[in-house]
Amino acid sequence: MGVAGLGNVGATLVRILQKDGAELNKKLGRQLQVTAVAARSRSRDRGIDISGLEWFDDPVALAKSDSIDLFVELIGGEDGPAFAAVKSALEIGRPVVTANKALLAKHGVLLAKLAEESGAQLGFEAAVAGGIPVIKTLREGLGSARIAKVFGIMNGTCNYILTRMGNEGITFADCLKDAQALGYAEADPTFDVEGFDTAHKLSILATLCFGYEIAPDKMRIEGISRISQHDIQVAADLGYKIKLLGIAERTENGIEQRVHPTFVPKGSAIAGVDGVMNAVALETDHVHELLLAGPGAGGPPTASSVLSDILDIARGTRVPPLGVPSDELLPYREAPARAHEGGFYIRLAAKDVPGALAAITTRMGEKSISIDSVIQRSDLAAKAIAPDGSPSRTVVMITQQTLESSVREALAQIAADGFIVGEPQLIRIEKL
Amino acid sequence: MGVAGLGNVGATLVRILQKDGAELNKKLGRQLQVTAVAARSRSRDRGIDISGLEWFDDPVALAKSDSIDLFVELIGGEDGPAFAAVKSALEIGRPVVTANKALLAKHGVLLAKLAEESGAQLGFEAAVAGGIPVIKTLREGLGSARIAKVFGIMNGTCNYILTRMGNEGITFADCLKDAQALGYAEADPTFDVEGFDTAHKLSILATLCFGYEIAPDKMRIEGISRISQHDIQVAADLGYKIKLLGIAERTENGIEQRVHPTFVPKGSAIAGVDGVMNAVALETDHVHELLLAGPGAGGPPTASSVLSDILDIARGTRVPPLGVPSDELLPYREAPARAHEGGFYIRLAAKDVPGALAAITTRMGEKSISIDSVIQRSDLAAKAIAPDGSPSRTVVMITQQTLESSVREALAQIAADGFIVGEPQLIRIEKL
Repeated sequence: MGVAGLGNVGATLVRILQKDGAELNKKLGRQLQVTAVAARSRSRDRGIDISGLEWFDDPVALAKSDSIDLFVELIGGEDGPAFAAVKSALEIGRPVVTANKALLAKHGVLLAKLAEESGAQLGFEAAVAGGIPVIKTLREGLGSARIAKVFGIMNGTCNYILTRMGNEGITFADCLKDAQALGYAEADPTFDVEGFDTAHKLSILATLCFGYEIAPDKMRIEGISRISQHDIQVAADLGYKIKLLGIAERTENGIEQRVHPTFVPKGSAIAGVDGVMNAVALETDHVHELLLAGPGAGGPPTASSVLSDILDIARGTRVPPLGVPSDELLPYREAPARAHEGGFYIRLAAKDVPGALAAITTRMGEKSISIDSVIQRSDLAAKAIAPDGSPSRTVVMITQQTLESSVREALAQIAADGFIVGEPQLIRIEKL
Repeated sequence: MGVAGLGNVGATLVRILQKDGAELNKKLGRQLQVTAVAARSRSRDRGIDISGLEWFDDPVALAKSDSIDLFVELIGGEDGPAFAAVKSALEIGRPVVTANKALLAKHGVLLAKLAEESGAQLGFEAAVAGGIPVIKTLREGLGSARIAKVFGIMNGTCNYILTRMGNEGITFADCLKDAQALGYAEADPTFDVEGFDTAHKLSILATLCFGYEIAPDKMRIEGISRISQHDIQVAADLGYKIKLLGIAERTENGIEQRVHPTFVPKGSAIAGVDGVMNAVALETDHVHELLLAGPGAGGPPTASSVLSDILDIARGTRVPPLGVPSDELLPYREAPARAHEGGFYIRLAAKDVPGALAAITTRMGEKSISIDSVIQRSDLAAKAIAPDGSPSRTVVMITQQTLESSVREALAQIAADGFIVGEPQLIRIEKL
C-alpha cells in the first residue's frame, strides 16, 4: 500500500505496520506492507525508517502508481492534493482509506459514486471521532435499527476546554492558550472552537444515519468562544454540564442538523465524557440509545482506525461507502424550525434600574415563552459591570419548551428597550 | 434461513424480516427471508404469522435441513437442543447466528473450531450486551489496538436493581420483586443477581480481547444480593455509585477475570449507565479507553444484533469467530492475585463496647492495610441492631491499595476476636 501524508497519524501508521506487521499478517492470513509514501519533506525526522520505501513527491502520482494496491490519504484539506489523489485512485478502481473529514463532508457523495462505479472500496473510519468505530457501527453493526437521532461530542479541543473551564474555574481564553501549548488546539483555533469541525463530522454521520446527501452547510453552527464562567457555574448549580454537541435528527419534514453548546444533565453518560474524549450517541426508533465514547484524536487511536479500514479491505468486506448506494441517497431536506423540548438557558446583563426585570419578563410573555425559573445571584452580579461602567446584574432565566426564534425575537426586543447591556447568552438544554 | 426458538427475540426477528425485508434486501442486494422455524409450541400466539413457514418440531432437524442456508439459534441453554442443533449446522458447513452466551461460554472454542473446519461462519453479536455491537468492534473494529483491560456492566437486571436502590432508597429485596413483576428478572433470579450471567459474557469478551481460551469458571464471582442501603448511601456520600462489573485484565503473569459489585466514581462515563442499560469499556495499551453503552436486552435491540450478524454473513464477511483461529488460542492462564490499586470499602457492625474500634483497626494494621478513612454515621447506627439484640454500630472503612486476601484475613481475625456482628461487607473501589 501507499501512504500519502506523514504527519502524526501517517508516521504512526507506518510505524505500526513496520513493528506489528507480522502479527497482523498472521491474524489476517495476508501480507500488509507499506511500500511507498508521499509527503512534503523527504528528509524530516519522523522516528520511522522510510529509506526502503518508494518515494513520491506528488501524492497523485502515488495514488495512480501501479506499485500499490491500496491508497491511504492522510494529507488533509477539503480540496487540493488530497482530493486530487483520492479521486485519481478511485477512478482506476484502487481502494482508498482516508481520515479526512473535510474532504468527505465536501466531496463524499462524488467520491462514493466514483468508488461504486469502479468497484473500489472507500474507508473513512478515522474521519469521524478518531479512535471510535462509529462508521463501522453505522454501516454494518446495527442490523435493522432505524436511527431517529444522532448526537455527540466530536471535537476534542472544545471538550478539553469546556472540561477545564468546569473543573478549574478558568476562562475560555486561558484554557485555549493552554490547549494550544499542549498541542490540543491549532494556532488558528477558529475551525475547532467555532464548531465547523463538528459540523463536518455531523454531516457525514447524518448521511450514514438517514440516507440523505451530505450537507455540512445546512445547519446552524455555534461554537464555544462565548461560554463564560457564569454559564459554567449556573449550569453546575442546576445540575448540568456544558458540552458542544452536534445533533442531527430525522423529523417528519426533513432533517434537522445543528451544532451548539448544550446543557446536558450531569448524571447522563455523555456528561461523563470529559477532556479530549469524544462520544457519539444514537437513538433508534425502538427508543434505545447506543453511546460510543473514546479518543477523538491522537496518533495511535486514529492510526488504529485507519488500520481497521485497511484490514476490512484486505478481508474483502464490501459495503457502500455511505451505507446505501450513492444514487439512492435522497436530496437533503432541511426540517423547519421546531419548538425545543428542553427549553433554553438565557443569561443577560440587566441594567440595575427599577422595572428592568419586569420589562424583560413581559417581553418574554409577549412571545408566549414560559419561564421556568429566574436566577439572580449576588456573587455573579459583582462581575457583571457593563463596558460603559453602568451597574448591571446578571440575570439567568430558564425557559420551558419554546421556539428558538421566539426567544431570539424577545431578546432583540429587550435589547431595543434598552434594559440590557451587551449580547445575551442563549444555550439549549437537552434532556437526553 | 431457519430460526429455532420463537421467544421474544425470535418472534421479533421474524417480524422484522417480514416487515422490513424488502428494505433490507434493497440495502443488501440479496434476498433475506425466514423460510422455516422450530419452537416448542406451534400454536402459541406470538403476534407473527408463521403459517407460510416450514415447521420443525426438532431444532436439530431444522439445523440440518437442506431447505435453509443459515441457521439462527435462539433457544438458549448451554447444552441440550441448542448445542446439538448449532453443532449439527456447523458440521455441515452451514452458517450459524446465535444469541446464546451460556452456549458460547461453555462450548465456544469447540464451535469456533467446527466452523473453521467446515468453512461456516458463526455470529454471536447478541450473546454479549444485547444491542451493543461489541463483538464486531472487538473482531473487526480496532485495527492495531491491543486491549489491556475490558470491563463493563453486562447484566441489565442487576443494573436496574442497583439504579433503583440508589435513586429510591429501597431494599434489594423490594427492587428484585419489582424487577420480576416488570419482566426484568426471572422467577429464579440467581443466575443474574449472583453474577453468573456476567461471568459468561465476560469470559467471551476476554477471549476476544486477549486470545486465551474461554474460561467462565476461572474467576471470582460475587453478585449483588448482599448490597444494602448502607453501602449505597455511603458510596453516594463518598462520590461513588455501586455497579456490578465484570473485569478482565491482561497481566504479565496471565489473565485476571472477576465479577463483583464495585464503587465507580460518580462522574465517570460508566457511572452514567443506569437502569437496564449495559456498557463495555475497553482500555488499550495506548491508554485510550473506548466505552460502548446501550440496551443489554429486549426484543428489538437483541434481534437487531442478530440481524447484523445475518447481514454480515450475507455480505460474505469472513473473520474467525473468536478473533483469531481457534488453534491459535492460548491455554487459559490465571493471573495470581495482585494488590488492588483502588482500595476497598469495608462495612461491618462493630459491637458497641469500649475498645472495639481500636481492636479492629489494630488487626488491619497487622496485615499492613492502610486505612484511608473511617466513617461512623449515627443515622446508620440505629439500623444496625444485631440479630441477637446486642447494640452495634455500623463502621465503614476505606483502605488504600492492598491485597484482597489481606483484607479477608484481617476480617476473619476481627470476627474471631468477637468484636463484630454478622458478615462484614467488602466492595472494591475502582478508580477508572
